[in-house]
Amino acid sequence: MSEKGRIESASEATTLRLSLLLRCVRTLDAAGVRTISSSALAERFGLNSAQIRKDLAMFGEFGVRGVGYHVTELMSRLKEVMGLDRTRVVVIVGAGNLGQALADSRNFNGEGFTVAALFDVDGRKIGGRSRTVVLIRDASGIPVDAQQIGAEIGILAVPPDAAVAAAEALARGGVRAILNFAPVTVPPISDVIVKNMDLSFFLEGLSFQLARM
Amino acid sequence: MSEKGRIESASEATTLRLSLLLRCVRTLDAAGVRTISSSALAERFGLNSAQIRKDLAMFGEFGVRGVGYHVTELMSRLKEVMGLDRTRVVVIVGAGNLGQALADSRNFNGEGFTVAALFDVDGRKIGGRSRTVVLIRDASGIPVDAQQIGAEIGILAVPPDAAVAAAEALARGGVRAILNFAPVTVPPISDVIVKNMDLSFFLEGLSFQLARM
Repeated sequence: MSEKGRIESASEATTLRLSLLLRCVRTLDAAGVRTISSSALAERFGLNSAQIRKDLAMFGEFGVRGVGYHVTELMSRLKEVMGLDRTRVVVIVGAGNLGQALADSRNFNGEGFTVAALFDVDGRKIGGRSRTVVLIRDASGIPVDAQQIGAEIGILAVPPDAAVAAAEALARGGVRAILNFAPVTVPPISDVIVKNMDLSFFLEGLSFQLARM
Repeated sequence: MSEKGRIESASEATTLRLSLLLRCVRTLDAAGVRTISSSALAERFGLNSAQIRKDLAMFGEFGVRGVGYHVTELMSRLKEVMGLDRTRVVVIVGAGNLGQALADSRNFNGEGFTVAALFDVDGRKIGGRSRTVVLIRDASGIPVDAQQIGAEIGILAVPPDAAVAAAEALARGGVRAILNFAPVTVPPISDVIVKNMDLSFFLEGLSFQLARM
């Protein structure tokens, strides 16, 4: 399989492991650690050292024999691999409680991401601002505004019956990835990554674990 | 390995697959389908039929040779296995935008779950109600109130510096599973399942996929 083929086939599990690894490496960097071996990294954060080496090997060699990984290099390579070496513009559709909570969250305004606009259909909300002063715009302008803002990621925090139309409007505005929090499945849109976030999955998971306790 | 051992070792991936399977089976039931084979089920919903048989076999035999599964029986067995055959009481700590959005969401008030209370430290919010009339209570009463309400699952929608104390208060109130939406990791608490929901993981996943497009 070609290098490109291998990279494209990175699964969701790989993505989550890399995301976790990046958090661990940031912690080490903040603590002033300069170099670390895959086994020390595994031990310190409860990971699997063989899996770490396997995941990182997908993106070329960047460990040093007998030394392990240089922490700052590992951190910058991971960010690069994950596309976090630049800031992606996020827009949110739906300025209700959930949309505003996400617009103001640290999660969505950290390294790599910035929320640039909220959209809503409610005339009483349009023109207002969330707590972190994200402007609330008219949802009818999504295709034009998203394009102008340079939005790459869209988040749906709308009622279920508005989700598909909002996703299509974002796609027309050049958005290439959508995270859907509406309690309905948004079907695939060509050339757009759609991730349906069904929060009840997580509750059901807890219920399953409780039933096994 | 004993049956119990096998069941306890059900991974997070198994949990998600069972959750997905239950959704598919509900769809079939609503459409009036009476019986279905694992291969038809797999084809219709884009699943893996061998994996379906393997997952279900963990919980005993309930397919019928030559017929497949009886849809209503499959649905009730799945609910039972996942502990969804009764309603679990959920309480939410933090009545800000996120907490109120979750309290009012369909996801958290569907079959199997009901949000019984919101807690907050803000005197101006205490005594009020969310849109779906969940009462907002004083967070200082969490241990007593959670016990009295019979809460099994707690959700943290508080600022990061309040998360650990809120989790401990829930644990003292008899809560056995916690879903943490605060942007901080809550360390393990004995006899309590803690699931840290770091929403930026999902954004990073999209970024990684965008970088590969």
